[in-house]
Formats: sequence, C-alpha cells, structure tokens
Amino acid sequence: MIVETPRQDQLVDQPHRIEKDLLGPLAVPAEAYYGVQTQRALENFVLSGVPLAHFPKLILGLAMVKKAAAAANRDIGELSAAKYDAIAHACDRLIDGEFHEQFVVDMIQGGAGTSTNMNANEVIANVALEYMGHAKGEYKHLHPNNDVNMSQSTNDAYPTAIRVGLQLSHAELVDSLALLQQAFAVKRDEFHDVIKMGRTQLQDAVPMTLGQEFGAYATTLGEDIERIAGLYDLLREVNLGGTAIGTGINADPRYAVLAVSHLSEVCGHPMRLASDLIEATSDMGAFVLFSGMTKRLAIKLSKICNDLRLLSSGPRTGFNEINLPPQQPGSSIMPGKVNPVIPEAVNQVAYQVIGNDLAITMAAENGQLQLNVMEPLIAYKIMESMRLLRRAMDMLRERCIVGITANRERCLELVNNSIGLITALNPYIGYEDATRIARVAQETGRSVLDLVREENLLDEAMLVEILKPENMVNPRAIKRK
Amino acid sequence: MIVETPRQDQLVDQPHRIEKDLLGPLAVPAEAYYGVQTQRALENFVLSGVPLAHFPKLILGLAMVKKAAAAANRDIGELSAAKYDAIAHACDRLIDGEFHEQFVVDMIQGGAGTSTNMNANEVIANVALEYMGHAKGEYKHLHPNNDVNMSQSTNDAYPTAIRVGLQLSHAELVDSLALLQQAFAVKRDEFHDVIKMGRTQLQDAVPMTLGQEFGAYATTLGEDIERIAGLYDLLREVNLGGTAIGTGINADPRYAVLAVSHLSEVCGHPMRLASDLIEATSDMGAFVLFSGMTKRLAIKLSKICNDLRLLSSGPRTGFNEINLPPQQPGSSIMPGKVNPVIPEAVNQVAYQVIGNDLAITMAAENGQLQLNVMEPLIAYKIMESMRLLRRAMDMLRERCIVGITANRERCLELVNNSIGLITALNPYIGYEDATRIARVAQETGRSVLDLVREENLLDEAMLVEILKPENMVNPRAIKRK
Amino acid sequence: MIVETPRQDQLVDQPHRIEKDLLGPLAVPAEAYYGVQTQRALENFVLSGVPLAHFPKLILGLAMVKKAAAAANRDIGELSAAKYDAIAHACDRLIDGEFHEQFVVDMIQGGAGTSTNMNANEVIANVALEYMGHAKGEYKHLHPNNDVNMSQSTNDAYPTAIRVGLQLSHAELVDSLALLQQAFAVKRDEFHDVIKMGRTQLQDAVPMTLGQEFGAYATTLGEDIERIAGLYDLLREVNLGGTAIGTGINADPRYAVLAVSHLSEVCGHPMRLASDLIEATSDMGAFVLFSGMTKRLAIKLSKICNDLRLLSSGPRTGFNEINLPPQQPGSSIMPGKVNPVIPEAVNQVAYQVIGNDLAITMAAENGQLQLNVMEPLIAYKIMESMRLLRRAMDMLRERCIVGITANRERCLELVNNSIGLITALNPYIGYEDATRIARVAQETGRSVLDLVREENLLDEAMLVEILKPENMVNPRAIKRK
Amino acid sequence: MIVETPRQDQLVDQPHRIEKDLLGPLAVPAEAYYGVQTQRALENFVLSGVPLAHFPKLILGLAMVKKAAAAANRDIGELSAAKYDAIAHACDRLIDGEFHEQFVVDMIQGGAGTSTNMNANEVIANVALEYMGHAKGEYKHLHPNNDVNMSQSTNDAYPTAIRVGLQLSHAELVDSLALLQQAFAVKRDEFHDVIKMGRTQLQDAVPMTLGQEFGAYATTLGEDIERIAGLYDLLREVNLGGTAIGTGINADPRYAVLAVSHLSEVCGHPMRLASDLIEATSDMGAFVLFSGMTKRLAIKLSKICNDLRLLSSGPRTGFNEINLPPQQPGSSIMPGKVNPVIPEAVNQVAYQVIGNDLAITMAAENGQLQLNVMEPLIAYKIMESMRLLRRAMDMLRERCIVGITANRERCLELVNNSIGLITALNPYIGYEDATRIARVAQETGRSVLDLVREENLLDEAMLVEILKPENMVNPRAIKRK
Repeated sequence: MIVETPRQDQLVDQPHRIEKDLLGPLAVPAEAYYGVQTQRALENFVLSGVPLAHFPKLILGLAMVKKAAAAANRDIGELSAAKYDAIAHACDRLIDGEFHEQFVVDMIQGGAGTSTNMNANEVIANVALEYMGHAKGEYKHLHPNNDVNMSQSTNDAYPTAIRVGLQLSHAELVDSLALLQQAFAVKRDEFHDVIKMGRTQLQDAVPMTLGQEFGAYATTLGEDIERIAGLYDLLREVNLGGTAIGTGINADPRYAVLAVSHLSEVCGHPMRLASDLIEATSDMGAFVLFSGMTKRLAIKLSKICNDLRLLSSGPRTGFNEINLPPQQPGSSIMPGKVNPVIPEAVNQVAYQVIGNDLAITMAAENGQLQLNVMEPLIAYKIMESMRLLRRAMDMLRERCIVGITANRERCLELVNNSIGLITALNPYIGYEDATRIARVAQETGRSVLDLVREENLLDEAMLVEILKPENMVNPRAIKRK
Repeated sequence: MIVETPRQDQLVDQPHRIEKDLLGPLAVPAEAYYGVQTQRALENFVLSGVPLAHFPKLILGLAMVKKAAAAANRDIGELSAAKYDAIAHACDRLIDGEFHEQFVVDMIQGGAGTSTNMNANEVIANVALEYMGHAKGEYKHLHPNNDVNMSQSTNDAYPTAIRVGLQLSHAELVDSLALLQQAFAVKRDEFHDVIKMGRTQLQDAVPMTLGQEFGAYATTLGEDIERIAGLYDLLREVNLGGTAIGTGINADPRYAVLAVSHLSEVCGHPMRLASDLIEATSDMGAFVLFSGMTKRLAIKLSKICNDLRLLSSGPRTGFNEINLPPQQPGSSIMPGKVNPVIPEAVNQVAYQVIGNDLAITMAAENGQLQLNVMEPLIAYKIMESMRLLRRAMDMLRERCIVGITANRERCLELVNNSIGLITALNPYIGYEDATRIARVAQETGRSVLDLVREENLLDEAMLVEILKPENMVNPRAIKRK
Repeated sequence: MIVETPRQDQLVDQPHRIEKDLLGPLAVPAEAYYGVQTQRALENFVLSGVPLAHFPKLILGLAMVKKAAAAANRDIGELSAAKYDAIAHACDRLIDGEFHEQFVVDMIQGGAGTSTNMNANEVIANVALEYMGHAKGEYKHLHPNNDVNMSQSTNDAYPTAIRVGLQLSHAELVDSLALLQQAFAVKRDEFHDVIKMGRTQLQDAVPMTLGQEFGAYATTLGEDIERIAGLYDLLREVNLGGTAIGTGINADPRYAVLAVSHLSEVCGHPMRLASDLIEATSDMGAFVLFSGMTKRLAIKLSKICNDLRLLSSGPRTGFNEINLPPQQPGSSIMPGKVNPVIPEAVNQVAYQVIGNDLAITMAAENGQLQLNVMEPLIAYKIMESMRLLRRAMDMLRERCIVGITANRERCLELVNNSIGLITALNPYIGYEDATRIARVAQETGRSVLDLVREENLLDEAMLVEILKPENMVNPRAIKRK
Repeated sequence: MIVETPRQDQLVDQPHRIEKDLLGPLAVPAEAYYGVQTQRALENFVLSGVPLAHFPKLILGLAMVKKAAAAANRDIGELSAAKYDAIAHACDRLIDGEFHEQFVVDMIQGGAGTSTNMNANEVIANVALEYMGHAKGEYKHLHPNNDVNMSQSTNDAYPTAIRVGLQLSHAELVDSLALLQQAFAVKRDEFHDVIKMGRTQLQDAVPMTLGQEFGAYATTLGEDIERIAGLYDLLREVNLGGTAIGTGINADPRYAVLAVSHLSEVCGHPMRLASDLIEATSDMGAFVLFSGMTKRLAIKLSKICNDLRLLSSGPRTGFNEINLPPQQPGSSIMPGKVNPVIPEAVNQVAYQVIGNDLAITMAAENGQLQLNVMEPLIAYKIMESMRLLRRAMDMLRERCIVGITANRERCLELVNNSIGLITALNPYIGYEDATRIARVAQETGRSVLDLVREENLLDEAMLVEILKPENMVNPRAIKRK
C-alpha cells in the first residue's frame, strides 16, 4: 500500500499531468488519483511522516461524509443523479478499502484540515471521473470543489469525518478492552482460593485472595467499557451544514438535516446535528473529554502493569507471588534472567497516551474565534492513542495475562509469616495486646501465631476459626471473647 | 480562624498536655482539640503551607462520614447510645462550621490520608469528650480510634469523605458556571443585530452577528453544566465498609450498607456502595475523569478569554470590535492604556488547572497494589482547581462580561470593507469571477462591492437582497442567476 | 504578619483615605501603606488566595530594583537627592523584612505584573513619605509613578525583580540540596560493606553494596547542584531600562547601564543587561529552562523515594533490605503498621512541581508580541516549586535519610539465595552450564551454589575467591579456568 | 528500504532458518540478517509501528558502540584479530548506511532496550559471518552475545548508543536552527526602517520598527543555539563498561576506559566515562534536561508563529502589517482566502514536542532501582522531537520567513493614528495632560497629534523632532520643555 509521492523537481522526469488552483499550475503524477491541492500539501508538509492512509477509519469517515453530502445535494436538486451516482460509487470503493494509498498528506498540517478534505475531494472526483468514462483531471465533468465538496466547507466536513471515524473505531477499542477484562475475570476465578497478603503503601496489610486482586482489575476495566460508551455518544454530535463558520452560508436550509440523516444511514451510527452550529464549529470539548478518557484507561493499564511487575518481582529477592509467562530472554549477560517485558511496554504506551493528551490539550486551548485550526493534531493524536491502547491491550492479554500462574505456596507462606495477621485477631485480643505482639514479632523475627499461642491469648479452636481464609478475606460478625 | 500550631520545642514553654501513640509520648497544646497523631503530622509535614481548614467542604465530608459510621455502629450494637450522641453532637458542630481551625494538617502529606483521618477522629473525640463532661485527652471515655474510627480505616473513610466534599461543592461550581453562561446569553441577545465579520485562522471569513458569537460561548458553557452533573454522579460511589483493603476485615457484614445509607441521609446526596470494594479502594478513575472535566472547562474559559482579548484588541491598531470594561489603569508609563486584565487572569487560572490535572494524573498512575497513597495530592488539587475555576468565573462575569459593549459601527465598517463578502456572492456570480474579484480587491485595496457593481455582475436589487444581514448569517435557499 | 484587606463596601465604616487614579477615586484603609492601584487589584483578583507577601524574596527583588533605579535616576539628574534618600530608606526597610504584610495582591493577576509593580511603588512611596515627614497619600511630595517608578515600566521592573528574587533564593535551594546529598554520602560510607542484590526491571540481577546504591543517590543529587548553578547564571540577564517594550522609550540612554550596575551592587549578584532588550522583554526562555531543571530535580527525588519505599517494603512480605525511621503510626486498624510517609510526601511534592512546570509551559507559550502577560503565573509557580522542593528535601533528610538502617543479614541472605550469583560464575563455567544451573535452581528452589558444588563445576577455593563481595561488586580481570 | 517482517505463522510457508535462544527454537526469514531475539521482539511488540530503522542516527550509534567495544576487547586480548576485523567491517557498513532496513524492532518495547541491542548484535554478527565466509546463523564462528556483545550489557551499550546517536544529530538540529535564525536576521535588516506600533497585552503600546520585532526573533533563536550546545555536552557522559548495573561485573578493569576512548575516535565526538557508573546506569537526568530544552525551543517557535499569524491577520479585518507568502488555497468555499498554514503547522509540531516531553518525564520518573526500563520510550520521543523540530524549522524558513513582506503604509498609518504616540510626548507635556488627551482621542476617534496641535501644547518643530521614528524607537535624553 506504499505510493510514491514525488515533488515538483522529481516530477519533471516522470509522467505527470498539470492541474491548476488559485496559486497557479502544478505537476501531479500521471497515475495519481489525488490532485493539485493534495500535491501542494505534499510539498508543504513534511513533518510527522505519517500519511492519512495510516488511519483507515478516518478515510472511511471522509468517504461517508462525502457520500451523505452528495445524497443531500441530490435530494435538494443541486446535484444531478449522474454525478451523485459517480460520487457514491467512488465513496463506496473507499469504504471498501480501495484507494487508501492515495491519502498521502501528512497527519500534521496547517490549514485546519483543508488539505485532508481536498485530498478526499480530489481522490473521489478522479475515481468518479474514471467511472463516468473520463480521464483523471477532467474536472469540467465533475469537480472536486463544486461537486464533491458541494454545500460543504472543510470546517464542517472535516470535523464530521473525524467524528465518524471515531465512531467506527469504537467497536475495536471496546472489543480489545472487553477481551482483556475477561482475561482478568478468568484469572479471578482461577485464583479464587489463593490466599495472600494484601499490601498498602508497600507495607504488609491484611490477607486477601489473589482472585480478589485480579477481580479488581477486571472490575476497573469493566467500568471503562461503560464510560467509553457514554463518551462516544458525545462524539455523535456534528456540525455538518454549518459550512464556513457555522452560519450555514451558501447552504440550502434543508441541507443540514438531510445530510446528517444520510450520514447516520451510511455510517450505521446515529449522528446528531448540533443545536448551535457556530459553537460546534470551533468547540473541541468532546475531543478533550474523550482524550481524558483515553488517559484514564492508560492510567489504569499502567497501574495494573506496575502491580504485575511488583507481584512477579524476584524470583528470589522480590515478591514472587505470580509468574508472568516468559516472552524473550532477559539479558545477554545474566543467564536465566527473564523480564516482565510485556507490562513494561504497556507502561510506555500509557506514557505516550498521556503525552498525547497534553498535545491535544494545548491544541484545544489554542483555537481562536470561529475555528480551531489545530484540529489535525487533535485528530491525529486521538486516533494514535486509541490504536496504541488497542494494540497494547491485545499484547497484554495474549502475551501476559492468559499465561500468568500463581505461586500458591509462596503466597501462603507470606501470609503465615506475616505480622499483618494480627489485625484479624485485633477484635479478640484487643488493640493493646495486638500492638505489643506485633512489636515483639517484628523485633525477634518470630511468628505472630507462635507468640499468641505461647501466651494463650486465644484458645486454639478460636484461632483456627478466625484464621480460616474465608473468614479473613470478607467482612464477618465479630464474636468478641 | 487562624490557630497557632506550635512544634515540640516551642511547646516546652507553653501550656500543653501529653498524649501517647505507638511511637511514644508527645506534647500537644493544652487548648488544642486535635491530638497526638495530628501533632506528629504537624511536625512531619511542612510543605504546601495549606492546612485542611482551607477546604471547609472536605471537613464537612469528614464529619458526615464519621457521623454516618457512628450511626451504623450504633444500629449494629457496637457503639453505645451515649457515645453515639456525643460523636453526633461533635460532628454536627463541625458541619455547622465550628472547630474548622483545628484542622491543621498540611494538604500534602504522606500516609494516604491517615493524618487527615486522625485529625478528624481526634477533634471529634475531644469535642465529644467535653460534651460528655470530660476533659480533652481523656480518651478512656471516648477514643479517637476505637470509637470515632470504629469499623473504619483511613482507606475507606478518607476517600469517602473526599467524595462527599466534592458533592457538597457541586452546587457552588455549577452556580458560578450557570451565572456566567447566563451573562453570555444576555450579551447574545443584546448583540443579536450587530453584524460583523467572522474569522477563521485569523483571516477574514464570512459575516455573522456578534450575538451569534456570544451565543456560542453561552452554548459551550451550557454543555459543561450538563457534563459536570453527569460526572458528579460517578463520584457518588464510595468504598465505606471496605476497611483496610476492601475486604471488610473487622467490619460487621451489615455495616457497609447501613453506613452508606446513613451517609446519604446526612449529606443529602444519594451515595452508593461500590460493588467491588477492593477495586474501589485503590481506583482513582472517577477523580481522573472529573479532573479531565475541570481541564475541559479551563480550556473553554481560556479559549473564550483569548477571543475576548483579540476582539477588544486595539483600540486603534487591533480588531476593536468590542470594549471590555476597564478595571484598573494599564500602565505606569503609557497614559490612557487600559488592558484586558480580567481575561488575562482567567487564562492563568486555566493554566494552573491544567497543571493540576497533570499532578493528579501522575498521582493516579503511581498508586500501587491495594491503595493509592497519593490520594491527598489528588484531593488537594481537585479541590483547588474547583475553587480557582469558581472564583475565576465569578470574576469574569462580574468584572468583564456584564460590562462588555459593542463597537457597532466599527463592526459594520469591517464587514463592508471585507473581501469575505464575496463568499455570499459566490453562488450567484460563480467561483471563477468571485476569485478574480477577490484578487483585484486585495491587490488594489478597493471594495468588493464597488468592483461587482462596476462590472455589473449582479443587479442592484439582488445585491441588496443577498447582502441583507439576516440573509448572510443563516442558511438560505440559493436562487442562482 | 496578617493584614486586613477590606473591600470598598467594607471600607465605608472603617477609617480610610481616598486616592485617585485613571479610573477615578477609591477608598484605601487609612493605615495601609499600599494605595489606590493596589486596592483595585485587591478588588479585582480574588483567585489563589496567596498574596505576594508569601514570597519574601520577590519583595526583596522589587525593593532592590526600585533602589537601583532611584540611584540611576539620581546619577542622571532626574531624581533629587532628597527623594533618592527617602526612596532608598524605604527600600532598605523592605530589604530588612519590614512592611512585607503590605504586599497584599494575589499572586495570580492580570496585567502582566502591573499590580505587583504598583503595590511596590505605593508602599515604597508611603514609607518614604512618612520618612520625609508627610502623611501617607501625599503623593505631591513623592509620587509612586513619577518618582518611585521613574524610567521604569512594569515590563522591565517586574521581570527584573523576579530574576533578582530567584538569585536570592539560590543559596537556600542549593543548601538544602547539598545537605541532602551529604546525608546520602554519609549512608554511602556507612553501608559500604553491606552486600546485597542489585535489581534491574524488578528482577534479581547481580550483587552490589548498599553503599554503592546510596552513593548513586548522592552522585545524582550532586550533579544537580552543578546544573542549578549553571542555569542560575541565565537568570542574571535582565531587561531593566527597556521600559514599555524594550525600545527604552522615555528612558535616558545612560539609564539602563547605570541601573543594572547599581542593581548588581544592591543585590550582591552580578546582573547583566540583555543585549536585545526587545527580545528580553517578551522572552520567557530562561524561566522555562529553569523550571525544566526543577522538574528534573523533582524526578530524581521521586525516583529515589520510590526506591526507598521499595527497599523498605515489608517487613515480612516485601524486600525489607532497609528500615526507614518511623515517623507516625501507620494505621488505625492495623496494629504495629508503620508506613513510609516521608518519601510518600516527597513523591506528591514532585508531582506538583511537574504540574507547575506544565502551567509555566503553557504560560510561556501564550505570550504575544512584545510582552508575555502570563508572567505572574510563571513567577508564582517557579517560586512555589522551589519552596516545595526545599521543604521536601529538608523533610526527607531530617526525618528519613539520616535515620535509615540496613538489614545486613537479610541483604546477605538474599544474595546467597539468589540465582543471580550465577552471573559471576558465567565467565568460568560458561554460558551454557550457567543457564542450565539457573533453570534447575529456579525450578527446584535450590541454591545455585549447592548445584555448582554438587556438580564440581568449580573447585571450592576458586568459588570462594569469585564470590568474595569485593570481587563481585567491581570490575575485575577474568582468569578463566 | 522496506523489509518484510513475517511472523511465525507466516514463516511456515516461506524460506526460513531456525535459531534458538533461552526460550527455545524459532523460525527466522532465510534472508534476514537479524536473528532469533529480534524475531521474538517482532512477535511481541506491535505497538507504534515505527521501527528502529526510522532513526538512522540511532543505528549509527549502535554500530559505533559495537565497534568501539570490539576494539577494546581486542586490545585486552579477549577478542581475536579475525573476529575484530569482521565485526569492525560489519559496523562500518552500518555506519555507511547499509543494512538499516534490518533494524525492524518497534521503537516502543519492553526489556529496557534488550531487543534493540540484540537486533544490532544479530545483524552485525550475520554481516560479519558472511564477510568471514560463513552462512547467516552459523554463530559458532562468531556469536551475537559472546562476541559482538562481549563485555557489554544492554544496560550500558544501549544508553551509550542513544547518546552517540544524539551527538550525531546535533549538527543537523543546530544547522536548521541557525538557518532559521539567519532568515530572521535578514528580515530584521530588510525591515529596519518600517516603523510600526508595538503592542503589549494586545493593546496599542509605543512605536518600534518591524526590524526590531524580527530582530528579537533572531536573537531568541540565537540564544538556543548556544544553550543546545551546552546541553549536548551533558550527553557525552556514558556508562560504557558498567555492564549489568554499573558495577562492571564480568568486565576487565581496563575495558571501560579503552572502550570509551575508542568510541570517541569512532564517532568523532569526545565522549566521557561517567565517574559513578551505578548512578549513570539508571539516571535519566541528561535526557530530561535536554528534552526540556527541546520544549523551550518548541515554545519559542510556537510563540513566534502565533505572532506571525497575528501580524498577518486580515487582510481587511485584522492587523495586516505583514504578508506571509501564500502556499496553498485556503478554502473550498471562500474565494481568494489564503491562510497562514505554515505557522499553523509549526504550532502543532510544538504541541507534539511538548507532549513528548511529558511522556519522557513520566518515563524518567518511573525508573526503579538499578535501571530505568522506560528508556526506549525516552530515546524514541527525544529523537522524534528533534526530527519534528528540524523539519518544522526548515519548513518555516523555506516556505514562510524568506517570503514575508511588510505593508509599510499600513504600519505607518497605524502609528500615526495611534493613541500610543502620546507616550512619547509624556515627558514633555506631563502625565496629566497626556492622559486627558488620550481620553479625548479615544472618545472622539480623533488623532492625538491633531489634539496636541489644536491645544498648542508643543511647538511644531519639537513635535516633529520627538516623533521622528529614530527618536521614538530608542532611548534618548529627554529635554523637557
């Protein structure tokens, strides 16, 4: 799917056609479906090196918007049936995944998305022209601006396409998240009877089960499935029909509602027309909040991975309660070393996602007046964050979570050896004795249970009863002695 | 409301009492309602210099949690009626605003909130002791840990108190936001007939009304009222009853539900018990998302203030479309200079709120295992952000928005002089002629209308019709020539 | 040092005087040394609640700039000797710490520091007036603008004062850092013979000494002493004499050099006049880089504290290699629990400092044209970060580092039990055998040494030689068998 | 330079060889120069989609480190001359730009760079093997670990390679910066006599020249050339020879000094051995500070671009003092619109660089104990930021700065029409009259000069003298009337 994107000086010796715009004529590769304005953007923006084609859902979003707009224009009587057919045909082929390599403009670009919008207009026009039996570039038969972009401005078509693209990405993201959540739930059940010490502030606290610990991971990710769904709804509000600044100048009064209705049908998601199109044209609030949600998910994943690395630390000088499945040799110098490389990679993805959220924050804050010109960066970074999160969750599940095993004996030994057991005895022997026993245990290295037995502070039957795992890891009625 | 908080070396020569804890005896000021553990925290943490007392809603949250817990303990039969009465009395006085100056611990503190929780336990115990006819410090009659903190751990009581505190802050925040939104709505109506140029990318675009511009500000803030309400709901979920790590160790199985029920009643907001208390004990997700929301509001306010500064730039060398009410002389060296000091201050508040969001992000990411020990910073920064936003919105409304006036003639002159008018003529004279006229206008400095008239491209009646303000600032059916 | 700062509606019933400015008359408390413009700022800016007085070094910086400017104006002949004497007297009293409570304006303010500058001008004028035998407010004898602010603009006097204030803070910050570095160096020496396992990726690596570990902390902090000194030098460049926008309008050509020369003398640090005063007036680069340095120090401190919490984790279920001195009881529910509260508080300070750096970043990026109007926030957040870091370092040293003890036997036991020992044997027994031994040890739970001995892979004398601590923790020539 | 990187399931049907590591056998494409550990990393890490090959300087750094290490090992007598020759040959070919497509591992990876280090070891080994007349994979003749990685650990070789890579990038970054600075300097000279109004807080201030304004941009960028050079020096300190954790285990005592000496020679930059290798192995301080410097440059560029967009705003309803060269049509709906797309793209690059700095900050803060496992992200984001900045500066210079023209008449008209002129008259007519004149001008819309003339406040000769451009834009001695 790699396409050559030669510049003017390279095109001299290559087959090319000449196209014109406001600034004059320019050579475009003969075989290119994109046109003069895309070519200008190629010459202008050599920045991230990441072309639009790297985000197929965005291209789908653009194609769906163009198809919906064309249908609305046809309904109103502005666009002929023949032109509509040709445009719709071209859009459908893009939606089917064709011609994506023609989306060559850099994701970072000035112009508030104009280059992206024109890249779509030009590719669609040329695919449609060929369908109509014309050659590429014969725009008198079908024009990128006058026909494909009819009743639109970049300022409404582009942000709408981004939102459609994000809708289409929803299922993928949530699928990966749900699968990861289920993987943790499986481990929750598998480890339901592995008794271990809980830790607060990295200090020994009170017993729990490893199943409870992994169950908490399942719970916390499950909450995010719900939250993401809620925030996706905000992204359904679009400004299509607002044209240049939201006043709808040069658009028919019937157009906006028709276009959004067609769009919902084309993309399969219920899109809504914003009530205040001027506000909707410049406001980045939905992106900011959604980016905040990707940050929240990144934080949760990073916290879980920090925990997994701690719990598997060792094997001899760490916690060593669980084993992560080895994925690669850990060291060229230390024989036998295996490292938690998968969680480590997830941590780094999380930090990038958090960094992306900051880039989005600054881009959102620096919008001015009737438009936020930084929207290309916002779209780029949100889509990148979503893809990184999705890939990181898949990797984490497949290459780590499903293969985690518990060191049951080690976990039990740590509980039995722990001073924290004293907390369970606290209601029976009193805070004062409990504190004294804890201190002696700490100072002498002896076991809390031995000390309690030695002093006959509780009879053996009661001690056994209290220290039954099922009694320690849930609330229970205190029967004080 | 200033209270002296002497350290050990200072207390030698002052009236004091001696209290003891796990680490030994310590002097506490004789008149202090706080006790030994608060005193230790005072000696340990001299950091932000901001005591708990600066956030009264947090103190109310603590008092409400303590009262609810006591009621649940009484219901279960763990706490005597007499002790309950005394604790409830003390809590009520805190809720009424008394004794807040006794909350002296620094907002930044280690220990995951233990010092805050103990500050509350100790103050409540001593107020209750006096109510019972005892002296401060006679804990054998009523104990900060055994009685006030009964069935609780810092790890459930403290985060619950934060959430209650945030519920109590909701009305204030939303009130300020709603008043600001209404102030913009008033200006929207006042300026509904002020025709002006819209700008995209800081370049002249197409006409709109100043009312539409201010209406967009009202709309965008109105959306946040709704969003904030939605996110507040997430903050109603609490882990009360989870005790140390969420397993509920040492709590009666009936306690959690009872305590949360009492809490809802006491605080007047419907609080909910989390379904997974282990997850709820360490998860900071609700705070992260809510902080993201404060960031979104900060971004919107900052964007609006950037716009206000641009629109009022001048008076002679800038846009000069609106006048901000002068609030102070602008320069000691430039006579007559008045600056947009109010929006400038709002920008800076926004940057601090965004910085706070980052501090919260890092604190949330660095929680480990069964507890997030960075919660004090999270509570501090969220509450600070909310207060800053509230004050900034009040300031912006009172000292800026309500006094804004429009320079109607200037606005109109800019429209009439603008090349952007050509866009409205585009559907009638065609893109090619329109572009040519635009170029000539730009190169010669002449008016677009003059050029159109000169070339007789449109008859005068039609020209007048098209350029009616009401026709340019809304969608309308194109009647092509 | 608390001063009442009543607003207009409160002043009606209090002793007050009336002052006037461009916007008209205003009441000022009769006893206040500040005047009308400070009063306006008090009414305008109720935001952070942190007055200028909380940063004494900033007030010193203002006083020193005013004194130096007055001296330059006297030299040039613009200011009479009598006025100079009075102004210098007032400045000296501020430098001695008097009248700081009169600096009442909020640290967050619009106006690019004008309110701060005027607060200084007014207090100095009124102190000088009393010295001259006049009443407060009799500005005809000595005027805040015409005399105290002579040849200055807020735009040069204020940023210069910030830089002077930061110079004065240098010694404090570096002292705290150097003391902390020394405390680590003491531990480096104390623990020089405590052999322990090093860990990479939280997995057992190879042996080292605890002294080496603490020595690395001393080294890394030592580097920052040097770096901070280097960056402080950048802050010596000032734009005094640039007046409004750096062109020096209304200032005598001799003034700038004279003023900076006097300033160096007054503040005791060699300040330099910027070569391009226009650039220097709007550029925030030195602040940005210096804030980046506070972030670097925060990151280092946070990393060290994360390590300390890991190394002291336990006591039974964690690493437990070192003991942090207990500072307060750790739990109301878990007897005997002591938590690493001091490092935890340092982590939170670090996150706030990092958040502050972001606020500074956004403020710096949003400067426009000839001035950065967000400078008050930049000054506030840098000074806050420096104070937080200083206090956190003092706390960390006094209440944690100096009291750390090593668990020598535990450390040694972990080394002897470690599979990582095999790395030291690697050059002698070969990577293949080493890997096999490591795997058997891991699978059986047996000791690496036992396995090596059992297989007679090395003679005992050589084994003893290789495993001598001093041979494992430094490079040494390999004498292969 | 695209290379296919098939996974295991794809390799079944393709020519492949089998290689083995600690975790067992794995298929590797027959033609691949990389080996089993690279293949594992390919299967593990599908995250950013950005392979090492995208950063050629990093590959050069790796090759130079490997060559230097081999030379040191040869000097010590550990590596045969034949093996050294083969390794050196392979490294030289990498340095010449060959085989870069074989560096296929994702830039985001777990394992602290082990996969990158092994990718280098394996490619070098196989290139060397072919040079020695052996087939790829015949590691018995020359081994990636035992020979290419001899005396090294990922933990010293990888961070050293990053630092070498950054040294090699220095010239490129500074060249772009210097060219941009010179482009501004050219405009400074070109516009030296264009008199215009300076603005503070977006309000009219006092006159300056457009040359002074552009000169300030040249100055501020010039400062960064100097600063970057200073910070690059910090990046010369390396931990080569520290091996696993900095203790130098399994390395000959002579190795470290020899290796660094060879490295300096190979890379052409004077690299230094860190004095504390344990500290140097885990410390990310130099990266943090250097990233802070890229952030500072990003902020400066963003501020400059914000200014350019403001100054060129219009053409009719904005400042319109300068014209940016048009690079592409600005709107599909608005004829004749040309937007400042180049500065807009630079802004977005700046926000990404600032976001990258945050990702680096979090990665640096989350290092633990003897290693920072997040180093791959740090390397990735620093290199990305440097490349983005370089490309953005080139784009800004070529496509914007060199083509900027001034609207001299517009600038002069704004000055003459400005109320700010009154500031220049202030010392002559007094602050009181000046303020009054300013107010009347503002209220009536009349010219300040007309009013002054009308009132005969100054004789015409003096007025002319004062208002000479050269007198207003520099300090000058006041000759009061």
